Amino acid sequence: MSKNGFFITIEGPEGAGKTTVFHHLAAMLSEDGVDLITTREPGGIRISERIREIILNPEHEEMDGKTEALLYAAARRQHLVEKIEPALKEGKVVLCDRFIDSSLAYQGYARGLGIDEVLTINQFAIGQTMPDLTLFFDIDPEIGLERIVRNKGREVNRLDSESISFHQKVCEGYQEVLKRYPDRMVVIDASKPLEEVIQSAYSAVKAVTNG
Amino acid sequence: MSKNGFFITIEGPEGAGKTTVFHHLAAMLSEDGVDLITTREPGGIRISERIREIILNPEHEEMDGKTEALLYAAARRQHLVEKIEPALKEGKVVLCDRFIDSSLAYQGYARGLGIDEVLTINQFAIGQTMPDLTLFFDIDPEIGLERIVRNKGREVNRLDSESISFHQKVCEGYQEVLKRYPDRMVVIDASKPLEEVIQSAYSAVKAVTNG
Repeated sequence: MSKNGFFITIEGPEGAGKTTVFHHLAAMLSEDGVDLITTREPGGIRISERIREIILNPEHEEMDGKTEALLYAAARRQHLVEKIEPALKEGKVVLCDRFIDSSLAYQGYARGLGIDEVLTINQFAIGQTMPDLTLFFDIDPEIGLERIVRNKGREVNRLDSESISFHQKVCEGYQEVLKRYPDRMVVIDASKPLEEVIQSAYSAVKAVTNG
Repeated sequence: MSKNGFFITIEGPEGAGKTTVFHHLAAMLSEDGVDLITTREPGGIRISERIREIILNPEHEEMDGKTEALLYAAARRQHLVEKIEPALKEGKVVLCDRFIDSSLAYQGYARGLGIDEVLTINQFAIGQTMPDLTLFFDIDPEIGLERIVRNKGREVNRLDSESISFHQKVCEGYQEVLKRYPDRMVVIDASKPLEEVIQSAYSAVKAVTNG
């Protein structure tokens, strides 16, 4: 694909405040006059929505991890083709909440399918359209966990050990992903106060786009 | 996966009489006392059925070819895990109407996604469980085309040129697949009379299984 736009993704474990910062960042860039679209999978794309329904259906307990990974890749492909790539071709900045790195960290590493294996099917899905810039919201797993618990209004010790262990694996997974893509990934220290985190994210974007 | 069974797939373009022979072959093997299951994707697996509904929904005209290939691979994975692999572990012979080679010929070659690319996502899907034996029903594209037309009860010249061209590409695609897997693929001359074709298929299976 030939493109003129700029593709930014936002990544991080739960509890890193990623989505809150995403909205602030989008508002700030819009105020600067940046021609921007914000999206997250499945992005309102009907085929991707149907695929997500299969993935998220709680009755589908028998779903194999690889089936799930292939379905995520399929939903990602359609979202990319229908929404992200057309916007990039029009020269827009695309700001996407989670993309390929989430699959690598969650499914590849934390679920144990293998980062390389999950990367392979995602490369098939996205082709050359890798993010130009990825803001990685880095947080100590313990702090992230506290935030998750606080948000859900329950005690830390009421989270089951599987959830805690999975959360830690996701954090480790992201560190592995970071080692692979040091050039496009910018680490944002998400343990800082919200205002500082937003400012860091904004500065990182401005440093690589015009202005 | 460790397995004791034997995994046989049946492949070929439309018009090769593949499915008719499949049923005869299954009956003959059963009569011989072979502990056999017959299946074809999506195989009654509810997750795979749901995925097929998305693929085959005529409203989904916007579906991208790679999205479709990933969905087929996802449906295949679940069918494999829930039905084929358990049967193989129990020592059964599994006879499956179409499997990975259909994706390679139809989507990889005829749809132009690339055999290697489609192979990669299917290797993710099926892991080590490649067919032990594949009966490839080979037919001259022209003859296959005549049979398709006859089955559909219409004149050859009323098939649109896109259908004809696609059918020819599928046949070419299978020849490419055949070059890659000469060891597990046995070519059955499907232009012969039905009785001979059935006998060739039966002999090919008996030659590699016990008896």
